[in-house]
Amino acid sequence: MSPKITVELLRQLRQAMRNSKCITEPIQAYIIPSGDAHQSEYIAPCDCRREFICGFNGSAGTAIVTEQHAALWTDGRYFLQASQQMDSNWTLMKMGLKETPSQEDWLISVLPENSKVGVDPWIIAADQWKNMSKALSSAGHSLVAVQDNLIDAIWEDRPPRPSTKLMALGLKYTGLTWQDKITALRGKMAERKISWFVVTALDEIAWLFNLRGSDIEYNPVFFAYAIIGLSNIKLFVDSKRLLDPAVRQHLELDSPSQPDLTVQCFPYESVFTELQAVCAALAPKDKMWICDKASCALTQVIPKAHRSAIPYTPLCLAKAVKNPTEIQGMKMAHIKDAVALCELFAWLEKEIPKGTVTEISAADKAEELRSQQKDFVGLSFPSISSVGPNGAIIHYRPLPETNRTLSLNEIYLIDSGAQYKDGTTDVTRTVHFGTPSDYEKECFTYVLKGHIAVSAAIFPNGTKGHLLDSFARAALWDSGLDYLHGTGHGVGCFLNVHEGPCGISYKTFADEPLEAGMIVSDEPGYYEDGSFGIRLENVVLVVPAKTKYNYRNRGSLTFEPLTLVPIQLKMINTDLLTQKERDWVNDYHRKCRETIGAELERQGRKEALDWLVRETQPIV
Amino acid sequence: MSPKITVELLRQLRQAMRNSKCITEPIQAYIIPSGDAHQSEYIAPCDCRREFICGFNGSAGTAIVTEQHAALWTDGRYFLQASQQMDSNWTLMKMGLKETPSQEDWLISVLPENSKVGVDPWIIAADQWKNMSKALSSAGHSLVAVQDNLIDAIWEDRPPRPSTKLMALGLKYTGLTWQDKITALRGKMAERKISWFVVTALDEIAWLFNLRGSDIEYNPVFFAYAIIGLSNIKLFVDSKRLLDPAVRQHLELDSPSQPDLTVQCFPYESVFTELQAVCAALAPKDKMWICDKASCALTQVIPKAHRSAIPYTPLCLAKAVKNPTEIQGMKMAHIKDAVALCELFAWLEKEIPKGTVTEISAADKAEELRSQQKDFVGLSFPSISSVGPNGAIIHYRPLPETNRTLSLNEIYLIDSGAQYKDGTTDVTRTVHFGTPSDYEKECFTYVLKGHIAVSAAIFPNGTKGHLLDSFARAALWDSGLDYLHGTGHGVGCFLNVHEGPCGISYKTFADEPLEAGMIVSDEPGYYEDGSFGIRLENVVLVVPAKTKYNYRNRGSLTFEPLTLVPIQLKMINTDLLTQKERDWVNDYHRKCRETIGAELERQGRKEALDWLVRETQPIV
Repeated sequence: MSPKITVELLRQLRQAMRNSKCITEPIQAYIIPSGDAHQSEYIAPCDCRREFICGFNGSAGTAIVTEQHAALWTDGRYFLQASQQMDSNWTLMKMGLKETPSQEDWLISVLPENSKVGVDPWIIAADQWKNMSKALSSAGHSLVAVQDNLIDAIWEDRPPRPSTKLMALGLKYTGLTWQDKITALRGKMAERKISWFVVTALDEIAWLFNLRGSDIEYNPVFFAYAIIGLSNIKLFVDSKRLLDPAVRQHLELDSPSQPDLTVQCFPYESVFTELQAVCAALAPKDKMWICDKASCALTQVIPKAHRSAIPYTPLCLAKAVKNPTEIQGMKMAHIKDAVALCELFAWLEKEIPKGTVTEISAADKAEELRSQQKDFVGLSFPSISSVGPNGAIIHYRPLPETNRTLSLNEIYLIDSGAQYKDGTTDVTRTVHFGTPSDYEKECFTYVLKGHIAVSAAIFPNGTKGHLLDSFARAALWDSGLDYLHGTGHGVGCFLNVHEGPCGISYKTFADEPLEAGMIVSDEPGYYEDGSFGIRLENVVLVVPAKTKYNYRNRGSLTFEPLTLVPIQLKMINTDLLTQKERDWVNDYHRKCRETIGAELERQGRKEALDWLVRETQPIV
Repeated sequence: MSPKITVELLRQLRQAMRNSKCITEPIQAYIIPSGDAHQSEYIAPCDCRREFICGFNGSAGTAIVTEQHAALWTDGRYFLQASQQMDSNWTLMKMGLKETPSQEDWLISVLPENSKVGVDPWIIAADQWKNMSKALSSAGHSLVAVQDNLIDAIWEDRPPRPSTKLMALGLKYTGLTWQDKITALRGKMAERKISWFVVTALDEIAWLFNLRGSDIEYNPVFFAYAIIGLSNIKLFVDSKRLLDPAVRQHLELDSPSQPDLTVQCFPYESVFTELQAVCAALAPKDKMWICDKASCALTQVIPKAHRSAIPYTPLCLAKAVKNPTEIQGMKMAHIKDAVALCELFAWLEKEIPKGTVTEISAADKAEELRSQQKDFVGLSFPSISSVGPNGAIIHYRPLPETNRTLSLNEIYLIDSGAQYKDGTTDVTRTVHFGTPSDYEKECFTYVLKGHIAVSAAIFPNGTKGHLLDSFARAALWDSGLDYLHGTGHGVGCFLNVHEGPCGISYKTFADEPLEAGMIVSDEPGYYEDGSFGIRLENVVLVVPAKTKYNYRNRGSLTFEPLTLVPIQLKMINTDLLTQKERDWVNDYHRKCRETIGAELERQGRKEALDWLVRETQPIV
């Protein structure tokens, strides 16, 4: 991986920062956040502005360019990758390390007095704007909204915004009609005396309307906004997309059943003016919900007296707690996904000794096998297929220039997943096709112990996920080891593979309590820079737990693994496991054998079935 | 315990809320926080305003009185106690339960439009003022500062503010002179370009000047403020206290060694006007530190442009990391304390069968035995000496009307501690003098497992204490049990038994990372309302841990118990312990036998020594 050469781009950007054609008055620094106008984590090519300017293409990171400096902030998953993708014009700011300054502190330390710091108000979230603006003001600087994006101004061949075909999902997949969802949402609005709700997150809009798109690779969403009133539904989307008869019928555009369930459609770009119009007509007591992570530009349209900024929207919460149809779909998707992975591992075992399998071809094979499964739509994120030292790059993606060959001598880590019409998967397995070293087995076993500690944890109803994070680390900590990422994220149902508002991480405190029906990942790891990476990830469903007692009638929860792919026994040092942990592994493998075995049998995939049976023998 | 009758008091307070002699304009609600003008947790009798108005005398809680309602917010430790101490005029608001409204939400739901809510600005912390004021404003109400406290106005026999004799502590106890501490503090101020620091927390002032008082029962502090400049030291304290030659000599009042180490003394009450004078003379770039938990009244004296409000002061942090002399002192104090407790338990064993020992007499005996130890000053908090159902009242204090007799049939819980000139102790043991039931043993064993999980935890340098809280609960959670309080608090060295900025609790997120030299308690529990309470508390020292590996050279930490009092073997169901847990218990008891045994021998306390040897036999 060679770094992007950014000398000329930085020169042009700095010129634009002073150029009156681009900007009302010169700015001394320009912030380039990672997201799009919907604060999406994964973004369309036309929105990859931060990657364009600095070369780093991970899913999280903020670039800041001043007249003298250029710096990028990202987290522990991306330290190695960012340092390889950026040239020497850029300083890497490693978030989470004690010595790393915050963006605010750094700006204050490098800016001349009374500086102006610019940012595109559509790209920065309202809460980030607020914090940044406050910090800069207190040091005598100011944060200013730059209406025309300066990266776009210097980006000559910027791709157009995608507008892919929409797919309407029926009740069989969603469990609830969009009309049911609107009605439930309005119930929550009425309960809190809210008249309007501005929906800006793409997955919330997709979930609410039971529609999917493919505007953003791996994320089945489409560019849209919605403004929901107690008797209005305003949808902002490229009007060409609504010519499709299936979509028109799904949304009842030509024959609405009820006036208050009539969808009014507007062009995507008109959300700003339409929101202004709605705001102008508000009654004095009307309140409008908007997420505090929505763009600063839209948020500031709503007068403060009417604005109720919330950390998580009711749609985000409703979407996180899967209904029975969604749970059943997620289970089916994970069974199909496991079939593909069992086939992959059986195939790898045969092919690797020939020396012809690479990180890229293995990932391609995984995709091919998944694509044979029913209702396959695409991958849910770029496959992380990594051999040996590449495994230590936490969000690695194999490229021709980094592509290693799988061998009998190095650990292989594959973190991959797919979108099926019935659910989204995300699974990581770490395997060795020869003989792992004692040290590799030791580290793997600590990671496994952490994985089990979370997966088997029983905890009271109302517990927030961050309180479980240390369970995943205790075995590593005991030996002086750790990993620099969170333990789990929410997973959508045929939606984004990362979703809020729940998760398992030491970094969040404002996460929402875990509830039965939520689905999260459980993925501790261990990474030795330059040598290998280990991660063990299942997607797990929050379910009620039966306990001996029931303190204050609160009830308890635990996790049920949806991912059913064997954990390589060869990598485990069973002496390091407790009896309870051994029982967990055996029980898990029994479930894999029964459930996936039956499906492999049904699909007539004999070799993979043999592999599964062999890989799920009980340990003693 | 009969509730306080508050009809007449509430009538008088509501009258005062409308009375132009007390207040510039009528207020519709009055907030009575728990603390004093220094935001102390434990307070002097003259500051017990919240207890005076509602009867509840726990260490945490806020009362709010409106024209129609009276409500008290407190946490899980005090639900039972508060409900017993308050009459039916009061509504108990159980904090931490989902259905309990916040003070702000409740006020908004009960107040008529455009209401004024009053509070004494000296008693409310600046950060609380800010949050409350913002919430009320957004609902059309306002928070107003009521200069003359309305409780004082109706409190006829309010006691005077104490002004006890000051005690100067020499290097033998403190390890650092106050001049060293001032110099180190100024170093930190210079590093952050801070010109002044307003010190308002009583324990910070006591620690900084190596002085102790006894103005607040159990807390060896004295009423004072300090304003520290880069070349000034302003101490605000009752001037009578400075007539004492020992104090004058200690502070070098009559012959200062250096101009910038000269202490200027001012009357306690003049802090407001003197701070105004200091602020009036500030240069444009001067910045002044004040804790965001300091009173609203003092904070607002400092112009915003000069104010740097910090969540924890450098003194709070410096005080939390004990120096070698303080650590040695804490160890000595805990040895002496264990001697007294071994004697107590040996004595209880003999006396209980006679039926003459009560909760109160047992607590008195504990105090008597502690007072025989060298450098004993007093108790560090009111002893919680509780039998059977009283043990379920988490912060119980035996009173003549609740006093139960210790017997062979009920669990006895004693949570007690002392102030010695070399250190502060806080220890809880739960014992049974007859035969505990299987259920009691089971619960005790889960609590013990949680205690061990924290005490033996190994974790990376820089880990915050809240990340360890779930370790203490895992065994209870597994069986559907839990406890509604945090797991640990910082402990001062001959200072407050509760101190910041570190702790082990699911409730805090903004705690400071644990560092070697910090001292915290480890005290999980289990409480069965109406039956029994179990708590197992040691004070533990954060120490470096030796680990097999050392990821990214971060280093690891663990805990060393300072408390060395046997854990009753009879209460343990050893079948529920892992081998590692059994080893921990045996190792802990070996340390108790060796260290405390030697001291008991030295002090010639033969009966207690026999008891200790018997109680520390290894389990198999």
